[in-house]
Amino acid sequence: MNSFGRIFKVTIFGESHGESVGLNIDGCPAGLPLTVEDFLVDIERRKGGTQKGTTPRKEDDLPIFKSGLFNNKTTGAPLTILFENKNTRSGDYEKQRAVPRPGHADFVAHQKFGGHEDYRGGGHFSGRLTVSLVAAGVIAKKLLGDAKVTASILEIGGEKDLEKGLQNAIDHKDSIGGIVECRVTGLPAGLGEPFFDSAESLISHAVFAIPAIRGIEFGTGFAAARMYGSEHNDAIEDMTGKTRTNHAGGIVGGITNGNELVFRIAVKPTSSTPKEQHTLNWETGEQESFSVKGRHDLCIALRVPVVLEAVTAMVLADLLLLEQRLKRLF
Amino acid sequence: MNSFGRIFKVTIFGESHGESVGLNIDGCPAGLPLTVEDFLVDIERRKGGTQKGTTPRKEDDLPIFKSGLFNNKTTGAPLTILFENKNTRSGDYEKQRAVPRPGHADFVAHQKFGGHEDYRGGGHFSGRLTVSLVAAGVIAKKLLGDAKVTASILEIGGEKDLEKGLQNAIDHKDSIGGIVECRVTGLPAGLGEPFFDSAESLISHAVFAIPAIRGIEFGTGFAAARMYGSEHNDAIEDMTGKTRTNHAGGIVGGITNGNELVFRIAVKPTSSTPKEQHTLNWETGEQESFSVKGRHDLCIALRVPVVLEAVTAMVLADLLLLEQRLKRLF
Amino acid sequence: MNSFGRIFKVTIFGESHGESVGLNIDGCPAGLPLTVEDFLVDIERRKGGTQKGTTPRKEDDLPIFKSGLFNNKTTGAPLTILFENKNTRSGDYEKQRAVPRPGHADFVAHQKFGGHEDYRGGGHFSGRLTVSLVAAGVIAKKLLGDAKVTASILEIGGEKDLEKGLQNAIDHKDSIGGIVECRVTGLPAGLGEPFFDSAESLISHAVFAIPAIRGIEFGTGFAAARMYGSEHNDAIEDMTGKTRTNHAGGIVGGITNGNELVFRIAVKPTSSTPKEQHTLNWETGEQESFSVKGRHDLCIALRVPVVLEAVTAMVLADLLLLEQRLKRLF
Amino acid sequence: MNSFGRIFKVTIFGESHGESVGLNIDGCPAGLPLTVEDFLVDIERRKGGTQKGTTPRKEDDLPIFKSGLFNNKTTGAPLTILFENKNTRSGDYEKQRAVPRPGHADFVAHQKFGGHEDYRGGGHFSGRLTVSLVAAGVIAKKLLGDAKVTASILEIGGEKDLEKGLQNAIDHKDSIGGIVECRVTGLPAGLGEPFFDSAESLISHAVFAIPAIRGIEFGTGFAAARMYGSEHNDAIEDMTGKTRTNHAGGIVGGITNGNELVFRIAVKPTSSTPKEQHTLNWETGEQESFSVKGRHDLCIALRVPVVLEAVTAMVLADLLLLEQRLKRLF
Repeated sequence: MNSFGRIFKVTIFGESHGESVGLNIDGCPAGLPLTVEDFLVDIERRKGGTQKGTTPRKEDDLPIFKSGLFNNKTTGAPLTILFENKNTRSGDYEKQRAVPRPGHADFVAHQKFGGHEDYRGGGHFSGRLTVSLVAAGVIAKKLLGDAKVTASILEIGGEKDLEKGLQNAIDHKDSIGGIVECRVTGLPAGLGEPFFDSAESLISHAVFAIPAIRGIEFGTGFAAARMYGSEHNDAIEDMTGKTRTNHAGGIVGGITNGNELVFRIAVKPTSSTPKEQHTLNWETGEQESFSVKGRHDLCIALRVPVVLEAVTAMVLADLLLLEQRLKRLF
Repeated sequence: MNSFGRIFKVTIFGESHGESVGLNIDGCPAGLPLTVEDFLVDIERRKGGTQKGTTPRKEDDLPIFKSGLFNNKTTGAPLTILFENKNTRSGDYEKQRAVPRPGHADFVAHQKFGGHEDYRGGGHFSGRLTVSLVAAGVIAKKLLGDAKVTASILEIGGEKDLEKGLQNAIDHKDSIGGIVECRVTGLPAGLGEPFFDSAESLISHAVFAIPAIRGIEFGTGFAAARMYGSEHNDAIEDMTGKTRTNHAGGIVGGITNGNELVFRIAVKPTSSTPKEQHTLNWETGEQESFSVKGRHDLCIALRVPVVLEAVTAMVLADLLLLEQRLKRLF
Repeated sequence: MNSFGRIFKVTIFGESHGESVGLNIDGCPAGLPLTVEDFLVDIERRKGGTQKGTTPRKEDDLPIFKSGLFNNKTTGAPLTILFENKNTRSGDYEKQRAVPRPGHADFVAHQKFGGHEDYRGGGHFSGRLTVSLVAAGVIAKKLLGDAKVTASILEIGGEKDLEKGLQNAIDHKDSIGGIVECRVTGLPAGLGEPFFDSAESLISHAVFAIPAIRGIEFGTGFAAARMYGSEHNDAIEDMTGKTRTNHAGGIVGGITNGNELVFRIAVKPTSSTPKEQHTLNWETGEQESFSVKGRHDLCIALRVPVVLEAVTAMVLADLLLLEQRLKRLF
Repeated sequence: MNSFGRIFKVTIFGESHGESVGLNIDGCPAGLPLTVEDFLVDIERRKGGTQKGTTPRKEDDLPIFKSGLFNNKTTGAPLTILFENKNTRSGDYEKQRAVPRPGHADFVAHQKFGGHEDYRGGGHFSGRLTVSLVAAGVIAKKLLGDAKVTASILEIGGEKDLEKGLQNAIDHKDSIGGIVECRVTGLPAGLGEPFFDSAESLISHAVFAIPAIRGIEFGTGFAAARMYGSEHNDAIEDMTGKTRTNHAGGIVGGITNGNELVFRIAVKPTSSTPKEQHTLNWETGEQESFSVKGRHDLCIALRVPVVLEAVTAMVLADLLLLEQRLKRLF
């Protein structure tokens, strides 16, 4: 339930205010060079600490290798990596135990786990766990060979000028969302399966593991629903499968077609907003109003690109490892 | 790869112009009453044969039970159901073997399966296999108890007036797409998992198994990216978790919250269009133009609602069976 | 639950006295030549119809391909094969509904499936389903390349002279069991995983899917528990890993070591015996005595070798496909 | 590959001379009370440090909870537990890098992981990882309710008098093996599936994850192959399914029948023996003789009972959680 992948299988674990968050990868090929330095850029991108609108909470967030690494290479045995939680202030949360924050998982976690959940800072539901996803992505990217995964923000709070979108939120003392696009070049044709394990199925499965995502569209996406077939179809131009246009976003029939993979996701506004909110106190059964005082991002979308790259790379690494085995047997 | 589900595990198989299509369900509880009659309505809805814009191809499409049924009830052993292919005209396709149709899986199937694929009518990639999905959905719906899954078309070719959208396509001699919405009432809170197996992850995984889907959005979806947090957050109103608004579409933190589940999908225009198209002949290496003469839908979106209901019901039946086991152990 | 394999995934289904038994293979590589003729020898071996001590029930047992085959080759899509049940006499069983036969699954099936199970001839629990295993084995063997799987009977009813063992049973009007050995030559080193997916784990998992198996031992097996370490260890003789002795049976640390794979299984005496038996009538709650009159084997072990080869080949085909993908990536 | 279980899913990781060994459990129900004290008895039993014939290496081996625990109860989120490796002397092993020890995984690990494996003390292949299994077992046992799992040694080096067997080995300056029996009382009928996931399949799968196991037999096991059917069949005595004899060992048709579960395993003699051994030096290509000087057990079987209980409890906990969900739906 907290694992993903058939060959390159990633499990994430941990809580926001527990000892640590981390990940286990079962199925990483032996011999992949791996050092702490490999993680620094993406871990730093995830923090977003210096940007306007991101939370000032900082962790060193250096990966601690607990298993599966020897002489700076993967061994083929399960790889376990921890990230310590150093900078936690649990007091912020405990007093609000009975007051589920709107837009957060507080209520559903309580329903699902019968009150046994670690509720401090969202516990296992915290965005803090995306550091585990990013770490898995660092390793997955190294397995992709020529394929390059790049995600970037298209708009913030409805504005293509990101500074403007952000300033708008600050002025309104409110949080905002955004649109993030992911593109992958250098992918071979043939990844994915016709139905249940279509490339879109697997990518969207992994993408919705990122908190706060509300939608995903491939190629022309929702706009395709308003096009004619003759407009939308991508004419094949050469024997490599290159198409004149790329409305399909690089996937046809669930299978990559060798063109650039393109998809976009919608990130909702951060649930924690400085604005006053209404909710229910489940001890008193009364409505209550409150406003969030803790450390929080105005726009969680700013941190999403590197996480989106990570989960995409995980899916593609898995598909590449999987495809390799069946290729040209006969 | 052609299976989905952890407890209620559905495998689909078959080819458009082979002997049959079908499905196997491993994990269906014993004792569920099931007869041919249960399938008639949804199978008929899928055919869409009497609507403007749907293909005249008809099959009786009566389910043939091959295993797992005894005295009109499921036995708990694997359930196998076949649908015979009666009305196939392979000749339409064979002459175009070397001419991959734009927007279809012809090219990628050839890449992936090295030329061994059954290419007649799209083979295993055919929309014909959605009859297997619909059949799985019929059974899944019976497991949902009070939960009701309903999908409906919101727009066709950009028009909310569906007749108008369809007529527009007929006038342009082209194919069109549409937007379909799915709503589920009566779901308990607590289904889904925080990250990799979030309710959105599982639903989108299953939804992208339906051919021609280009996007999915939950609740306010892409519009959420342009809202403020204070607008988007759904205030919890009572102890059951009922919220005043339902921007989240019934899922928070990956878990159902007891409110109505709401999501929409984008269906691309049918790839087969009466309009002239350009493609590559992979034997000659030359560009070629052609137009589709076979039986095809102008708007495949018209057939999608019942398929969308089916895959959604499959996911929810699996989550309900899964959740049952952990409930109130301690 | 009725599936096995990670890449080469086999699902079996059907009931003894239902319409058919069959199998689905998801993950069979495309391009494998396959015809009805490929199945004849092993299907015939399984029948054992002409041997003393095997049941006279006969089926043509010709495989009917329902999906995944095109131009006599696998397509890479799921392969579905049916075997019709022609020669069923349900009346034998229905009158004994409330009288669970000792040694059979009647009682546990009733407990597990709440009375909804197909009880005719053992239903889904019947040895009839081994025809599905044998069929999967036929395909798996074709994927093994140089590796050859051979199973043979070592003893029947405690006698190495099989005729004598069988005659003994006939004279005693009772059923008997036997020991079957399986050997695989030509396997590469490196298949299997250190712990949970050790080669022994996977093989034994598959082997205990065969009805009536009571034990399995690898290499010297139980005798190893009475040897000294210096006796039991196999000295490595050359760079291919060839060992002087083969007490390990070709597996060390859960991984194949390139030597012959050797293991033995114990088959219990057929549960249906002509001798009078005692059991409980669950309607009356009274003890009852009865003796089996239907068609039954005196010694089910006679039919086991080809089934044992089949499940072994399934495991090895899966491991070979799995290993291929990780080999020499770096 | 290093995971086991469908609902209660255990992943083990770590290396003998790395930083730590550990485990992750995904799917442990929320609310299970769990403290360090719960582990002490079984961890101590595994050490076997004070017995004749077990290695003097000692670790404190206290579980360090890294995730999934809050207020001394499981939260329902993935549980991660580490055990630090404190007492490692890698120097013993590094000089013998090119000299694969007979009976150990050195050669196959090198084949499988292309020389990237952590070879110190067996690395990931080490018996050290059984501490992770034992820890998983401690938790699994708490989920079993009334079912009690007990394993005990039946013989050592062929002797039922264990002291005598051990002294014999010491006198011969050699290592020895043994037979261990496992019994489970209080299990409900109905666990397991007819074929691939038979109770025997799952138990043997898990059991062969324990290093040094060479065989497993259920109930009368190999002796059943020499019995008549009328002798072997267990007569059902009452409505609970209680049988007069228990030759089946509590499993019929792959399903538990409510009687005591009984099986035995064969443990080979410890591969590391004080006796001189022959092997190949893969750098020189020459035969070499050597004898093991490091810390090693004369009889690894002495440590096996608690590990055997652990993997058995893991299987049964998983089956119990799985069964619960399907029970009495209709």
